[in-house]
Amino acid sequence: MRHLTQISDVSNRDVERIFAHAREFEAVLDRRIKKVPALAGRTVGFLFIEPSTRTRVSFELAARRLSADTVSLAASSSSLKKGETLTETAYTLAAMNVDCVVIRHQLEGAATKLAQLDLFHVINGGDGAHEHPTQALLDAYCALKRFGSLEGKRVIIVGDIAHSRVARSGMQLWKRLGADVVAIAPDSMLPPHLPDGVSLAPEIDDAIGEADILYFLRIQRERFTESCFPSVAEYRRYYALTRERLERIPERAVIMHPGPVHVGVELDYEAVHHPQSLINDQVRCGVAVRMAILADFIAGEGGGLEIPA
Amino acid sequence: MRHLTQISDVSNRDVERIFAHAREFEAVLDRRIKKVPALAGRTVGFLFIEPSTRTRVSFELAARRLSADTVSLAASSSSLKKGETLTETAYTLAAMNVDCVVIRHQLEGAATKLAQLDLFHVINGGDGAHEHPTQALLDAYCALKRFGSLEGKRVIIVGDIAHSRVARSGMQLWKRLGADVVAIAPDSMLPPHLPDGVSLAPEIDDAIGEADILYFLRIQRERFTESCFPSVAEYRRYYALTRERLERIPERAVIMHPGPVHVGVELDYEAVHHPQSLINDQVRCGVAVRMAILADFIAGEGGGLEIPA
Amino acid sequence: MRHLTQISDVSNRDVERIFAHAREFEAVLDRRIKKVPALAGRTVGFLFIEPSTRTRVSFELAARRLSADTVSLAASSSSLKKGETLTETAYTLAAMNVDCVVIRHQLEGAATKLAQLDLFHVINGGDGAHEHPTQALLDAYCALKRFGSLEGKRVIIVGDIAHSRVARSGMQLWKRLGADVVAIAPDSMLPPHLPDGVSLAPEIDDAIGEADILYFLRIQRERFTESCFPSVAEYRRYYALTRERLERIPERAVIMHPGPVHVGVELDYEAVHHPQSLINDQVRCGVAVRMAILADFIAGEGGGLEIPA
Repeated sequence: MRHLTQISDVSNRDVERIFAHAREFEAVLDRRIKKVPALAGRTVGFLFIEPSTRTRVSFELAARRLSADTVSLAASSSSLKKGETLTETAYTLAAMNVDCVVIRHQLEGAATKLAQLDLFHVINGGDGAHEHPTQALLDAYCALKRFGSLEGKRVIIVGDIAHSRVARSGMQLWKRLGADVVAIAPDSMLPPHLPDGVSLAPEIDDAIGEADILYFLRIQRERFTESCFPSVAEYRRYYALTRERLERIPERAVIMHPGPVHVGVELDYEAVHHPQSLINDQVRCGVAVRMAILADFIAGEGGGLEIPA
Repeated sequence: MRHLTQISDVSNRDVERIFAHAREFEAVLDRRIKKVPALAGRTVGFLFIEPSTRTRVSFELAARRLSADTVSLAASSSSLKKGETLTETAYTLAAMNVDCVVIRHQLEGAATKLAQLDLFHVINGGDGAHEHPTQALLDAYCALKRFGSLEGKRVIIVGDIAHSRVARSGMQLWKRLGADVVAIAPDSMLPPHLPDGVSLAPEIDDAIGEADILYFLRIQRERFTESCFPSVAEYRRYYALTRERLERIPERAVIMHPGPVHVGVELDYEAVHHPQSLINDQVRCGVAVRMAILADFIAGEGGGLEIPA
Repeated sequence: MRHLTQISDVSNRDVERIFAHAREFEAVLDRRIKKVPALAGRTVGFLFIEPSTRTRVSFELAARRLSADTVSLAASSSSLKKGETLTETAYTLAAMNVDCVVIRHQLEGAATKLAQLDLFHVINGGDGAHEHPTQALLDAYCALKRFGSLEGKRVIIVGDIAHSRVARSGMQLWKRLGADVVAIAPDSMLPPHLPDGVSLAPEIDDAIGEADILYFLRIQRERFTESCFPSVAEYRRYYALTRERLERIPERAVIMHPGPVHVGVELDYEAVHHPQSLINDQVRCGVAVRMAILADFIAGEGGGLEIPA
């Protein structure tokens, strides 16, 4: 059974096919009737142990617009509180003929553990500081729409790279699609080792002029108190896309962020709503790309994707 | 884009058309198959920041029986807890191609603020002490079914008028439809100014004999401790429809309440379940009127309302 | 109107018909498109005052795979917190044209009270220590699939029989279907009287050799502290299906548990996943049997069950 627990689970050929289908689904989302029967009669389970609104709603809409039935098990649900293990929950969902489970969990490896049971398709909706492969795919899809190709494009990723599953999945995929990746973060937010081929720049002003994609990570506010990093003001001085800095970004460059943005921390309001910002388009692409992923994994390569006109 | 944030957003012609459609939907609700394809492939979002069961369930059933897809963001959902602003949430929902958002919020003006962004149709499901226009519409629809016309009918509204969004929306609509409106409340529950043409009576026994519609507002229990009003017993003496008072209501009069009733506070059990009570019919009309509103705003005037027989 | 509040609400003829339909629905669940239009346009309400994941998800999937619309009122929902009584909630749901309500409640008799109003079909999803009739039906269905007939089969029920609604509903149905029922429990977990024809054995080792069905009840952990029963270790010594004891079960015997299992309390991991364990099949049968129950009660005997091939 095919699973998507980390970005290395999809080949470049898979990515190409998923993106081709996402383009078709994006067109569906522009119609009055934003729905296709691709997954009618199939069931998608949502196992969101770590709470989330944005990712959950994006996946739920993706599943419903594919006509799937959905069922939700939240963190607060009682069986899991009663101490039932993830494994027992998985056997239960499998016995209920769930075709695919989207899991989000605060622990690294939770999605992988679920996938190893091989009871249904598993899609990782984010596991601890490990991976968030659907975010990486939607980001790449969104950037590709703008640039046509990512070959030789310079992606600078700014923020808490050490603790970011978005960064971990993203850096791999940007590289694979031919981009140059530059990481920018304070020392306390850098991992011990960067992936092969990812270079490092000390602060945002050193890299902004050469950037094609300015990718900002969400900073957990806890980091400021926990870590040696002094304050939000200090962080903003070197790493935020402030109103002032916004005037120095190249004309070709785009601004990206996985959301939700801490306005005034990672980005100023003007940067979020700047004409070069792709942030809302990332959300929009999110639904289309997740429709393509769910359809591809559940209905098979190209199966179920005969979209009625 | 059309929005329903306050009762003045709909003209009398709009009201007439919505009520005509509500009558058709009421007939649908009597069928075995209580569903029409009017909004198939459309998405309705529920943004219930102030919790609610009754209004939420009424709107959800309305949306589903129109075949819409629905998605829910509750107060407890994490993005909004993480400090994301209403504006950012709105841009996200718009990017997800949500056609209409029903919002309920504890702050006055929340629905108006959302509507000003003009990203999708906004229906106000109640904002603080401001307005609750769908409640006013369903109440008027329900009364019209009984009386044929509201011209010259006397509506007495009893209770916490100062803090009631139901009263604020209702008084305007009752007046517009030709009714005489009389407000009855203790001083601490009266607003500084009543709307033009709404008169005042000191206590319920002065007005009960002339009433056609006896409309009771829900009293927040907090009011009794917060305000100068002494006690539930004192309130009941002048303002409740008690068992004793029930014997003095005119035969033509109907009893209404937006629910849920505090049995033994605003109304005695006998009043709630009295043959002249419309309280359950209000709930029933609620689903039909909300179906008509959602269809009218989303699918357009009369669009999507071709109900299959 | 027909209700299922206790196992005596269904005759043997009803059980036979429900099981026949469950077999058809089980076949549907094996298909790629696990959905039938039996309850399209009908509405099933879920009133889960006592939280539950497993039973809720099982019923929700059953309802959706019958194409019903569903609506949920949870314990945390505000109307019920605001002190609205079960009766008022029932009138509201009836006014919203809900066809059937599945209720789970911590109080004995809650389902019966709701059924007495006779406003919609009521299915008891578990009420306090009273009954859990759909669990009894799915267990019997599951055992019947294995044994063909339960006539003369020996069912031993082990655990907290005094406080178990599963035991109360189950013992009646096992007996009615011709099985010999043996109860095994520490004194503090035995009711004052066992049902007619149910015999008692002091500990599991006295009965294991003659068992066809080994049915283990879930033990509430509170019992160990509340009651005179000393400890989990003590309980395991006499009443659990441990790894060691597993070697002494007859070849023909099956292991059952309503779930979720406390692994290491009632059963060891090896027992849960043993080839003779029906525990996952119980979950699977749960959806099919609940589909059959919902369809039978809402659409009528055999109505709506024309399953398209």
